[in-house]
Formats: sequence, structure tokens, C-alpha cells
Amino acid sequence: MTSFDHRKYRPGPVVRLPNRQWPDRVVERAPRWASVDLRDGNQALIEPMSVAQKRRMWALLVDLGIKEIEVGFPAASQPDYDFVRWLIEAGQIPADVTVQVLVQAREDLIVRTFEALRDVERAIVHVYNSTSPVQRDWVFGQDRDGIRALAARGAELVRREAAKYPGVEWTFQYSPESFTATEPDYAVEVCEAVMAVWEPTPERPCIINLPATVEVASPNVFADQIEYFATRVSRRDCLILSVHTHNDRGGAVAAAELALLAGADRVEGTLLGNGERTGNMDIVTLAMNLYSQGIDPGIDLSRPDEIIQIVTECTDIQLHPRHPWIGELVYTAFSGSHQDAIGKCLSRQGRGSPWQVAYLPIDPRDVGRTYDAVIRVNSQSGKGGVAFVLERERGLTLPRWLQVELAQIVQAESERGGEVNAMRIYDLFREHFVVDQGPVRLLGYGLVRNGHDVIEARIAEAGIERTLHGEGDGAIAALIDAWTRHSGQRVGVVDYREQAIGEGTDAEAVAYVLLNVDGQRVAGAAIDQDTVSASVKAVFSAINRVAATAEMADVA
Amino acid sequence: MTSFDHRKYRPGPVVRLPNRQWPDRVVERAPRWASVDLRDGNQALIEPMSVAQKRRMWALLVDLGIKEIEVGFPAASQPDYDFVRWLIEAGQIPADVTVQVLVQAREDLIVRTFEALRDVERAIVHVYNSTSPVQRDWVFGQDRDGIRALAARGAELVRREAAKYPGVEWTFQYSPESFTATEPDYAVEVCEAVMAVWEPTPERPCIINLPATVEVASPNVFADQIEYFATRVSRRDCLILSVHTHNDRGGAVAAAELALLAGADRVEGTLLGNGERTGNMDIVTLAMNLYSQGIDPGIDLSRPDEIIQIVTECTDIQLHPRHPWIGELVYTAFSGSHQDAIGKCLSRQGRGSPWQVAYLPIDPRDVGRTYDAVIRVNSQSGKGGVAFVLERERGLTLPRWLQVELAQIVQAESERGGEVNAMRIYDLFREHFVVDQGPVRLLGYGLVRNGHDVIEARIAEAGIERTLHGEGDGAIAALIDAWTRHSGQRVGVVDYREQAIGEGTDAEAVAYVLLNVDGQRVAGAAIDQDTVSASVKAVFSAINRVAATAEMADVA
Repeated sequence: MTSFDHRKYRPGPVVRLPNRQWPDRVVERAPRWASVDLRDGNQALIEPMSVAQKRRMWALLVDLGIKEIEVGFPAASQPDYDFVRWLIEAGQIPADVTVQVLVQAREDLIVRTFEALRDVERAIVHVYNSTSPVQRDWVFGQDRDGIRALAARGAELVRREAAKYPGVEWTFQYSPESFTATEPDYAVEVCEAVMAVWEPTPERPCIINLPATVEVASPNVFADQIEYFATRVSRRDCLILSVHTHNDRGGAVAAAELALLAGADRVEGTLLGNGERTGNMDIVTLAMNLYSQGIDPGIDLSRPDEIIQIVTECTDIQLHPRHPWIGELVYTAFSGSHQDAIGKCLSRQGRGSPWQVAYLPIDPRDVGRTYDAVIRVNSQSGKGGVAFVLERERGLTLPRWLQVELAQIVQAESERGGEVNAMRIYDLFREHFVVDQGPVRLLGYGLVRNGHDVIEARIAEAGIERTLHGEGDGAIAALIDAWTRHSGQRVGVVDYREQAIGEGTDAEAVAYVLLNVDGQRVAGAAIDQDTVSASVKAVFSAINRVAATAEMADVA
Repeated sequence: MTSFDHRKYRPGPVVRLPNRQWPDRVVERAPRWASVDLRDGNQALIEPMSVAQKRRMWALLVDLGIKEIEVGFPAASQPDYDFVRWLIEAGQIPADVTVQVLVQAREDLIVRTFEALRDVERAIVHVYNSTSPVQRDWVFGQDRDGIRALAARGAELVRREAAKYPGVEWTFQYSPESFTATEPDYAVEVCEAVMAVWEPTPERPCIINLPATVEVASPNVFADQIEYFATRVSRRDCLILSVHTHNDRGGAVAAAELALLAGADRVEGTLLGNGERTGNMDIVTLAMNLYSQGIDPGIDLSRPDEIIQIVTECTDIQLHPRHPWIGELVYTAFSGSHQDAIGKCLSRQGRGSPWQVAYLPIDPRDVGRTYDAVIRVNSQSGKGGVAFVLERERGLTLPRWLQVELAQIVQAESERGGEVNAMRIYDLFREHFVVDQGPVRLLGYGLVRNGHDVIEARIAEAGIERTLHGEGDGAIAALIDAWTRHSGQRVGVVDYREQAIGEGTDAEAVAYVLLNVDGQRVAGAAIDQDTVSASVKAVFSAINRVAATAEMADVA
């Protein structure tokens, strides 16, 4: 039996803030971004990232332009320790990127943390302890003075150990963990104790990071907590005020956004919001929120498909199709009145003038997407539609992204010629997505699978036969590698599905692939007796469809 | 090529609100909830709901206690028209529930809308037109006066048509669509024109619904827009102020929550946030936010698994594992320090006293969940863990929920006896999840599949042989039906997976099932030569595991 009863819970925190300023402000520039994907994000996974995955994630974060990256908890985790060592010893940290590591306020852990960082040029050492009443009383069994002394002692140890590595440019960061559940005056008191040890200056500031370890109130209350802190702490000019929000009430992004109004300079978060429980603040969403209001986000989000591909592969968590700005259904309009309004606005939107299109807050092309007007075929029949017909008549289970694109093609056909029957829908599917006759034609391929896959593909392109070579984990990865080497295109696999249709000796494999080629998504499909051949051919279908689109653009 | 460049976008709206009140308020009671699952939610689906799915969704909404339910756009959609007629003619509307229908401010559509509602006892007719500058200028080609006249004309038509059905208790609702992008003073002006026609009174109020059709600013700006409206509109006591938010910037829930502070009485949303583009406001999240602060949400969310099951089935969109309050990873702690703190708090949490457990904002049992402390086996090896080992050694691809539970069992074993090898992990999996010897033992079953499935299962229970009968769509549904009839337990299937392991004549089917039995989740698995048998046996494994837990509780 469940025990659903609201009476066991108390009201959320309230901050007395008689001279509240933040609601009158607007955000005018992007904050300093700090990624905690490799720490908070990684520690919340059922299967932590492998070394290869951590390296991919690191490369992505650097590539996007994030300059402060928390890479782990080296004193508590050997893999984190090893990763920090690799970053330093293999020279993986660009000159303008700073690594950050987390450590609890305990002597043995702090000593080992600095050891892990030896020979680094520059680093942020992030020390924390928990400060809320329940943590003080029930977890640590200490009073306010005791916990404040614990924080000050941690700060002293950090200062002492740092002094042993004078060649390193250290930045110190302190978090009163469970800040949102801590009395505001006490949070200030503890941070003052830490700063009294560190003696930050405007030239050598420290970072004070205020976490919504658990989101316990609506975002305006978090903003009040931040403004309270920012206006009461001494040495405001000697500290970088950072926030770190979680999404327990669905408000992580809003809380960070309002905290910027309230005085925060820096935001910690993760890509797509991976992190403990309900996740961390999603850097992509907040950055795109700023972008859509004319603010330079300071990071490059023009290729979200790469972000989605790498993050979902590293976390084994799929992106929700309605994820803000970049989910697969975001730029899709099913309603006739919405489509009509969007069409009218697009036809009037001037190239140089500010963007203002109803129902489309940004131009989808900014993030490599297109606007999809999807009109339902057979909408009168309720359970109708293209996907349903293909599934029933042909056993094809189309991925959602292919359903959307095919539905548009079928719709265009029906506008020209009236009703479109099941056989014609199947023909349209093959005609448009199974593109195997050119510009690139696959003549044959050889695949050596031995843990790692090596492919040799013979193709004809504009009448010329060539042999491509590539390798990777899996046939598709190897083929993409081969094609990339040959064409110079930047190709990523956004999604890949396969299914068997029919049974026994009649069974066929169908492969569907969604590639991102030079920033644009393109789908391809193929049907074959053999699963691997179907997947190889599907990739060439997609590549041919890119080429075909480019040719049409040249003609126009 | 993408065109990522922030300079084409303008700053968000700003409201001048010199005497702003909302940041000083706290929410003290739940709003009136209005569901738009069957309208806004349904119209945003690639595959709109079938008649059967709409009926299931309606039943769920009624069951949860939602009293105002928008069921469609009957004048624009024949399926919506038919559904409204069915609700009325089949007597499906409980005495305390009001149906709502949407219609544009156009005469033919309004006439047909009232026709669709004939013989209803009580209904909300919701008329709208779009009011933002871009909609006025580019879509409708009308100025402020023209659009205000259009709204007033719609209101007149609604009033005129309603008068033709004097036996019905009508409530009128008006939405200035694209409200968030509309000048605040003009939004008031348009709504005043509508109210001048409707002449609402405190006894017969109308509903004014202010939509964030597209979320264009942070939630505090939306709250400013609501407070501006609420404090400047005349006849405030004659209207129910409603909000309807979308999630384009990830702030739909926060915007609704802050709008409650700013004066909103009523919130429109959907279950799990389905809806156009990035989705509508999620009623479950907002209600649980209130619940967790001691506020009666006014709806029954004690069985979220039922909500997840029905909504995902109707929308074909999976719940994100980090969805606030009810995602599968929400009550999971992987970090040792979190586990330690949670353990200490749980041991001190008194039964009657207010809940205060670190990292767990509510008692997971309130929503039929349990707290999962997951300690990683082989965390030193990076890409280690129970799931990885089972996949590599046995080809088993465990669903996430089973990985989590098995990892805890393996961890407990490793704490007793040190290292746990792959064979032992497999044994633990079989021992704990493949429970086929009792209390209920399957002796055999017969299945007639003919579109609809009918099952006859012979079981032995406490030594007594019985034959159970059931039916449903699919073998598992039929079996659940049989078991429910026999046991009286309330059983739902939260998730079901199957896979083939091995090849050719050695191939075996593995089935994994996660049931919700009387509000508690329980997993089961089975391995068999035959896929259907594996699934049937997996269900009995789960049922046996419930019974075993109950016995243990009785002993304790």
C-alpha cells in the first residue's frame, strides 16, 4: 500500500528580502559555464563511463567551448584519479581550459587530491561539506559551530596542500552542500569562515558555489536565497558566485536563470541535464534560452546532433523527444492553424531582420534542423496515418523521424492526386528513402570483424570505381569512417534501427539510419536478405540523399 | 551549413510592474486543474489517439480526480466530435466533472461546437484568437482594433449559440492566444471587450485563460505578465484566471507555479507534459511540487505507474528516466556519501514527524516506489558492473530497473563474501528473479490467439490445483486479467522486455517483466525455449516475488 498523504511534509523555505532587486533585472550576458558531466553526471549512471567514453565526453566539452570542467573525485575513485593523470600527462588540457576536481573536507582526501593534480598548470580544487540542519543533526551529529569549524578546517587543508605545489595556478572553490535547505544567514557565516582562511582578493578570487543539492522550492525562492547571499557576504568583489541546481521539481534551468538575475556569475550544469536523481541543470537549454533572446551563449551549440549522439552513448539515456530546443519533435507542427501561421510568417521573414515567426522561437536551421509541417493522412480515421498503414500492410516499423518525413511526402502526393493507398505509400517510402542507384552506388564490400571492424567498400561514383577503407566499432562505424576519409564530410550517426520482416527463408532485414552530414540530418533506409548488408546500404541511401539535395540546391 | 548567430534574435518581453507583489507570496493551496491531454496533447502526436486510447485517457483523468477536461476541437475534427457525442450519449461524464471544448472565433465553427455539445448537462466552451503583433500583422493582417473586434464577435457568437441550449449550464472561456508575446495592456483590452459581451458575475464567472503559447521568457516575466493582468483587469471577482504554459525554455512548470503567486486560480496542463513541440505544463510535476510542501494537491497521484503506463501507451512517448518525482532513477542513490546520509536519516525518521531525509524530498513509498541504494560492483574497473558482466558472459540484456535491483543483491553478497564472479552473478539473477516453484506454480496453459487473446492457466497454489481464465490484447494482458480475477490484486504491467539468446536450435527466449501489484513494483524474469512461455512464466515469477515479500513482512 502507498502512503500518499501531504500532511507529513513541511512548507518550503522562505527568505526575508525586503529590498529584493532581482525581479527588476534582465540577463544581458552568458555566465561562466562549468560542466560537471564527468563528476555529478557520471556518478549518477548505473554504468559509469568507460575510459574511452570519458575521453569522448571531455573532447566534446572542450570542443563546445566550455572552459571549466569538473572531471571527478580523484581521491575517492581510482578511475577518476587515473583520468586526471591522463589529462595532465597526455597534455589534453588546452591552454584556456581549467580542470576542476571535487573533494570532501577531509585531510586524507585533500592530500590525495593535490597529489592527483601534480604538474597541472592550473586547476580548481572544489571542497565541500554539507550544512543543512538535517545533515548537521542527523548525518554529522554536529551543531552550527562544529560544522563551520569543519568547513574552515577543510579550507586550511586546501590552502596548506596547495602551498606544496607553488608552480600551479590554483583556484579554490567551496560549496556549502544542501545550501537550499540551509538557513541563509548560516550559509553566509560558513562561507565567511572559509574565505577568512583563503583570503581571496579581486585579482585572485575564490569561487563560492551555492548548490540546490536537492531542489526544495520554486525558482523565485532560490533567486531570493542567492540575492540574500550576494548582498550580505563580505568581499563580494573577491569571489565568483556560482550556482549548481538540480531538477527535483522540474525547475533546474529556471532556478539557474533567475539566479543570474540575483547575482550569480557562474553556472554549473551538464549537457542534456544528466545527473543525480532528476538530473542537473541542462547547459544546452539555458544557453539556448539566452541565445534565443539575442545573447551570445559563449558556447557553440550549432551541432546539437553531435551532443546528443555522444551524451546518449556515454550515459545510455535517450533524449526525450520533447527536450527543449533540440528534441526531435520540437520543430514539428501538426495543427493546421499553426502550419498556416508559420507558413505566412516564413514567407514574410526578411533575411536581415529580427526573427519573428509564430510558434518557432528560433530558426530551426540554426541548430541543423528543418521545420516539419506534418499534416495527417487519414486523420479522419483516428488511428490512421502513414506509419500505421506501413506497419499493418508491410510489417515496417518506421522510426519516428522517418514517420515524420515520410508523412510530409505522402501529404504532398495526396494534395496533388487525392487519396494515397497503402501500396503507393510503400512505393513512396522506397522511392524516397531507399536510394541505391546513385550518385554513389555500392558494388560490394568486405568486412573483417574481430572485436574491431575493418571494412573495404567498392563503390561507383560518377562512373568511377573506387575502393574505400575504414574501421570502427561495428560495421556502420567502420563504413562512416571510410566515407569520411573519402569525402571529407563530417558524418555522425544520430539514430540507427533495424528490424526483421517476414519469417524463415523469406525473412528480410530492414535498416533505417539517420545521419548528420555536415550539420544537416538526413535519413536513409535499405532492405536486404542480410542484416549487415541492409545497414551498409542504408548508410549509402542517406549519403545519396544528401547529394541529391545538394544537386537540387545547385539547380535552384 | 547551420546559421548559428544570436544577433538575429531580440530580447524577451519586459513588464513594467512598479508595485510587484508575487515574489512575497507563497502558494498555500492547489489550483483548479484542467487537463488538455485530449486536445493539446493529442494534437501534438504523430499518431493521434485511437478511440480506445481516448477512452482510456478519459477514464484515467476522471480517476485521478481532475474536474475540468478539454476533450477536443469538435468543430474541426470529426473524431473529436464523435468522442464528445460518445461522452454525452453514453453517460460517461460524472456529475462533478465538466467537459471543455476548444473553438476558434469563427461563426461556422462555433455553431457546430454547440451542436456537438447538445444534451450535455454542463460544459466549458473555450474560444480563442491570437493577439500578438506578429500574428496580427503577418498572419491575420489586422490592427489592434480589428483583432479586438474579432474577439468580441467570437464572444457574441458564443453567447448567441449558448442561448439556443437553455437547459445546459454553460461556462465561457476566452484565451488571447500568444498572450506572452502580446503587449500586456492590449491583452487586457481584448479580454475586457470579451467580458463586455459575456457580462460575467461573481456567481456566474467566465474563465480568462492566459497562454504561454510559446514560452518566450523566464518564469518571473510570465508571473509579471499575470500580475499585470490580474491587477489591471476590471471585474476581477467575475473571472477565473487560468494559465496554460508550454515548455519551450524548459520552464513550463516553474512558470505555472510562479503564476499561482501572481494571481492565477486555475492551471491547464497535461499528464507527464505531452503537448505541442516541447510539451505542455506537466500536471503531475506541479501537483507533486505542492504535495512535497504539505499542500493537498487535490488529485490522487499515489499510483504514478498507472499514469505512466496509460500515458506512454496513448502517446507512444516514453517517460524520461529522470522525470521529476516519478522517473525510474529518481529514488536511486549511487554515491556512497549520499547513501550513508540517507541511511542515517531513515533510521532517525519518526513515523509521525515531518519528513526530513537528506537527498529524498519525499518518502518514495508515497508513490509506490522504494529507495534504491546502488553500490557499484567492480566500480574500480570503470566499464564494470553487474549488467556488463551478464551481457558479456551470458548475453543477457537486463532492463535498467532489473539492473538496479540485481546490483543491490550482488552488492549485499559481496559485502558478506568478497568478490562475486560472473557465474555467481548469473546464479543470483536466476535465484532472485526466476521464481517458478512457488507459492504459485504454473502447471500448464492454453492460449487462443485470435485478434483478442484468451488464456487458460493451470496452477498449483498451496498444494491446490486451480484453472484461471482471462482475456486481453496479448498473452500477458490475458494472464494479468486471469490473475486479477483470481487474486483480487490490482496488477499493472509497468514494463516488459524480451530477448533471444543463442542461435538456431539452441536459441532461448528471456522475458523480463516489471509489474505493479497493489501499488508496489516487483520484477520477474523467466527463460524458456518459447517466447510466449517465457513471458507467462516471468509474470508468475513476479507474482511469486510479491507473495514472498509479503511472507517476510508477516514474519518480521
